[in-house]
Amino acid sequence: MAAAAAPPQPPSAAAITLPESTPSGDTLFTRIRLATRDDVPHIHKLIHQMAVFERLTHLFEATTDSLAATLFPPNPPPSFTSFTVFLLELSSVPFPATTDRNFAPILKSIHIDLPIDDPERREFRSNAGDVQTIGNDAAVAGFALFFPNYSTFLAKPGFYIEDIFVRECYRRKGLGKLLLSAVATQATKMGYGRVEWVVLDWNVNAIAFYEQMGAKVLPEWRICRLTGEALEAYATDSSHICFIKSLQSDKCLCS
Amino acid sequence: MAAAAAPPQPPSAAAITLPESTPSGDTLFTRIRLATRDDVPHIHKLIHQMAVFERLTHLFEATTDSLAATLFPPNPPPSFTSFTVFLLELSSVPFPATTDRNFAPILKSIHIDLPIDDPERREFRSNAGDVQTIGNDAAVAGFALFFPNYSTFLAKPGFYIEDIFVRECYRRKGLGKLLLSAVATQATKMGYGRVEWVVLDWNVNAIAFYEQMGAKVLPEWRICRLTGEALEAYATDSSHICFIKSLQSDKCLCS
Repeated sequence: MAAAAAPPQPPSAAAITLPESTPSGDTLFTRIRLATRDDVPHIHKLIHQMAVFERLTHLFEATTDSLAATLFPPNPPPSFTSFTVFLLELSSVPFPATTDRNFAPILKSIHIDLPIDDPERREFRSNAGDVQTIGNDAAVAGFALFFPNYSTFLAKPGFYIEDIFVRECYRRKGLGKLLLSAVATQATKMGYGRVEWVVLDWNVNAIAFYEQMGAKVLPEWRICRLTGEALEAYATDSSHICFIKSLQSDKCLCS
Repeated sequence: MAAAAAPPQPPSAAAITLPESTPSGDTLFTRIRLATRDDVPHIHKLIHQMAVFERLTHLFEATTDSLAATLFPPNPPPSFTSFTVFLLELSSVPFPATTDRNFAPILKSIHIDLPIDDPERREFRSNAGDVQTIGNDAAVAGFALFFPNYSTFLAKPGFYIEDIFVRECYRRKGLGKLLLSAVATQATKMGYGRVEWVVLDWNVNAIAFYEQMGAKVLPEWRICRLTGEALEAYATDSSHICFIKSLQSDKCLCS
């Protein structure tokens, strides 16, 4: 579930000011690109951090292997037609101009008013192939995972954003906007009709952020979820489940 | 949006008892199959009926052409990997045993306690190729439209049900259960982790039905939607949108 624009938290007491920490008044270069199988270890860590933030680690079952198998299958479908990950990277030097036949990376720069201490800079060093050319400086700061959905009223596909996440030390710098904008821009490029995601009703900061981005929060709809054993119950031959009862006798009338 | 288990409504005063109406105490045969491009006119009518029920006709923009183009493209992806429509048909005679390389139709029968008058039986006569062999008797009674979603916590795909709809005269006969069960069973066959959909919070009959089916309603999550002009705003070159403002001067610092 989405956790962008998470309520800001104070820096962890354990945060170490690394030599690479960004000095105040500096410029950081950002890149949003399509993730590849090489990025799975970082994606796994990011999802886990999101589970910690949402206090839902008891639901966290993903492994690097299961993520790789499901997000980056051996014969991948065309870009954007299935599960898609945008990875957000930051660097103190500009990213090289690269070409990607499926998606041209989005390059921007941001001005940093306050120093950023990234205690996990080394664990999140980018695995991008071109990272050598920029001196191994790039760090993975966040991601968005999305996939096509469909509106029958519009008769158009859209995108559903399952997750949008920025690591704690990089929040409140407009990076969530960069990720959300990248998905929305891609949707318009494809002629899609909607971009949707979900938010926790108590996360007023996130709701304010999303509304500022032009989104409407739908107050009346609730999510229904069939999972775990309740879903597994349907794995048995469906003739064993009583679907049809007589209105008169309450007797099973399944064929 | 889903509208299954809609609150039952009294039969329309305009309902005509056709000669084909089902007598009390009779058996009806049901079939759930993958829809094809030939079914688009019926799917279009069903979606419109759903919009009427939800009082959302002002949002209804689908045409048979736009549905055909988006649901049944010329080079369709493998079954169940994209937008998928299950069509529910009813007949007073058994459906022929057919084979479908992608999905074996689900055949059942239900016992009818009360007569059913279907005033639209002719408009909803099935377009299935094998309908001739059963005397043109089969009628389309409902549909479910669903597509893959993805849980990062489970690192597994699932299904999201955008719509599940049964025509008014066929409600309260367990047919919504048949459709929902068909999607859930398909999810388990594919090793998927979740089936999700949404419900209006005031639709207590639907909520009770879904809970009876094993689903949990998640009370805290709200849907965010970016659509129409708010989405189109992202179609312009994103460098024209200010993403990054200086915390000190409120000046645009976008690159």
